[in-house]
Amino acid sequence: MLEQVTVAVDANGADLGPAEVARGAALAAERGVRVILFGPAGELEAAGVEVVDAPVSIAKAHDPARAVRSTPEASIVQAVEAVASGRADALVSGGSTGAALAASLFRFKRARGVHRPALAIVVPVPGAPFLLLDAGANVTVRPEHLVQFAHMGAAFMEVVMGVRRPRVALLSNGEEPSKGPEDVVAAHEALSASPGAIEFVGNVEGFAIGSGVADVLVADGFTGNVALKVMEGTSDVLLRSVRAAATSSARSRLGGLLLRPALRGLRDQIDPQAHGGAVLLGLRHLGVVPHGSFGARGFASAIEVAERGVREDVLGRTHERLAEAGALRRPRGGAGEAQAGGEASGRDRKRSEAGPSVPAANLPES
Amino acid sequence: MLEQVTVAVDANGADLGPAEVARGAALAAERGVRVILFGPAGELEAAGVEVVDAPVSIAKAHDPARAVRSTPEASIVQAVEAVASGRADALVSGGSTGAALAASLFRFKRARGVHRPALAIVVPVPGAPFLLLDAGANVTVRPEHLVQFAHMGAAFMEVVMGVRRPRVALLSNGEEPSKGPEDVVAAHEALSASPGAIEFVGNVEGFAIGSGVADVLVADGFTGNVALKVMEGTSDVLLRSVRAAATSSARSRLGGLLLRPALRGLRDQIDPQAHGGAVLLGLRHLGVVPHGSFGARGFASAIEVAERGVREDVLGRTHERLAEAGALRRPRGGAGEAQAGGEASGRDRKRSEAGPSVPAANLPES
Repeated sequence: MLEQVTVAVDANGADLGPAEVARGAALAAERGVRVILFGPAGELEAAGVEVVDAPVSIAKAHDPARAVRSTPEASIVQAVEAVASGRADALVSGGSTGAALAASLFRFKRARGVHRPALAIVVPVPGAPFLLLDAGANVTVRPEHLVQFAHMGAAFMEVVMGVRRPRVALLSNGEEPSKGPEDVVAAHEALSASPGAIEFVGNVEGFAIGSGVADVLVADGFTGNVALKVMEGTSDVLLRSVRAAATSSARSRLGGLLLRPALRGLRDQIDPQAHGGAVLLGLRHLGVVPHGSFGARGFASAIEVAERGVREDVLGRTHERLAEAGALRRPRGGAGEAQAGGEASGRDRKRSEAGPSVPAANLPES
Repeated sequence: MLEQVTVAVDANGADLGPAEVARGAALAAERGVRVILFGPAGELEAAGVEVVDAPVSIAKAHDPARAVRSTPEASIVQAVEAVASGRADALVSGGSTGAALAASLFRFKRARGVHRPALAIVVPVPGAPFLLLDAGANVTVRPEHLVQFAHMGAAFMEVVMGVRRPRVALLSNGEEPSKGPEDVVAAHEALSASPGAIEFVGNVEGFAIGSGVADVLVADGFTGNVALKVMEGTSDVLLRSVRAAATSSARSRLGGLLLRPALRGLRDQIDPQAHGGAVLLGLRHLGVVPHGSFGARGFASAIEVAERGVREDVLGRTHERLAEAGALRRPRGGAGEAQAGGEASGRDRKRSEAGPSVPAANLPES
């Protein structure tokens, strides 16, 4: 057992306010995680949690990348800084994805051999939860990025979610290897080429959600983001419609009342709070970005996911996987390791020196 | 009122068999549509419907494009031929999207001034149905293709679905005009530039499904296809879960029983059969592609959508819209009409002479 893991938590940005994040931090602290909370100290009462007074919030900043640079006193920047300096081991943001991504990408370097960080999220399908990545960090990708996402996702599911030999699929518009845009076809070929390194099950279509055929679904950040939000939108409208049906007559109301406990069970199964939110993979430190709407329970989950990721060394295990699969980015100037899907371009190699420095959602194609 | 519209229907390919398609054809004929049915005459009993014996089916062909070329006697090829030759006014396929697309693209020329045909489908959201296009005809697109899809979709919703001044949105990963891949950003700019020509409401995210903010959602065929199937997958898994919840205990079973009539109403609202299936827009003839799982009612709807499209001249109205918006493809070699989003490339212009000749799902980027 490792020594205690410390998680730096930004308390600003949550819809329910900093006090709710503090309650989540207290829950996680009870379960043995060391937490440093950055936010307005006056609002943060959390037993067993260290509080750093950082009242300035950039959670609603219009241009998060600029806000991060110009506001070193902001709570998210201080939390990220605590991780970068080694005072804490991982980051949890208070609910503003934009600011959390911008601050992490600004301050955390990319993990060794990784082309691009990716946002990964456990989609809570009843009986068949799966990891979707990239859920929005990279609007455009190259095949070797998709290949790395596959390995990064597999490592996360194995290490943090305890799935043995996770089955990985590419999200496409058909199951045949030839389906999809060029990049997806090339990634399919590369992943098929090293069958031992990963349990690659090929392309899956959106129908596959809920079928349990894959534990990890890989897409570029645009398609992944659209798919994720389409799931949320579809889920919302359907559950709303079921609720409306259950209040449409006296008979239906009685039916709805009798059914309520069972439907509550379903609601718990599809509650995204259980999994802590999105995880930023591929940087030198782990970051977890809960949804802004989460309550204390969701923030506690996020902190525990971050803690587990550090304790089980998800970053190290990801690196091992990428190395074994020959999917590491070729080191700058050297002959280095083999790389799936083609050469890293000069620009890509160059950017790796400085680490990513723009908000992930706007990362330009390199 | 125009003279009677004739719809050519391929009876092969439906999951429930040619007889079910024939029943749908009979329903449509009862409502005044002239139908010519192509399929195994022995199985096709349909009052008031002309039957052409065409027992050969390529609905399950592995390579639909090749099958279309090598099998002129196939029912879908004969049905398409009937439309191309003017014997019928529009096409309805028996349920094999691949064969229907391949045959239509092989034999129908692209509509004047249209870059690319698109597959459009009415998504049956309770209270807020909308048209999604491209749902799978073009894996990659250019901005001017997205712009044309916007106008094509608006014309369809106006003319066939009776929506006055349909609101059109681009499906993206954020609402800001800067969000999305380059092509989406450029299409956003082009659509914003002519505010009178179209009711463009900007980018929407997947959350917007069910919100009723847009009547037409425009995407490239890869993203659109993934989104459509994710909706279906999410919808399936949720309704299955609700059903499972409703049988999980005696109390729940009673609740489910009481709720059943109201839920049946919801099921009818989200039944894709009501809208007849996917519509192939942008060719010189209209094609409707029902889902293979449809029953007689779904095929009847498809035939009626095709009939309405012809009677209300959706192709002519689409052309007018594109012309008014300056979004027509520049005619080959001429100064011609203005074109949104840039010049047509030489290859694009060249291909337009022969008409599309490859299965839409594999249309190469031009």
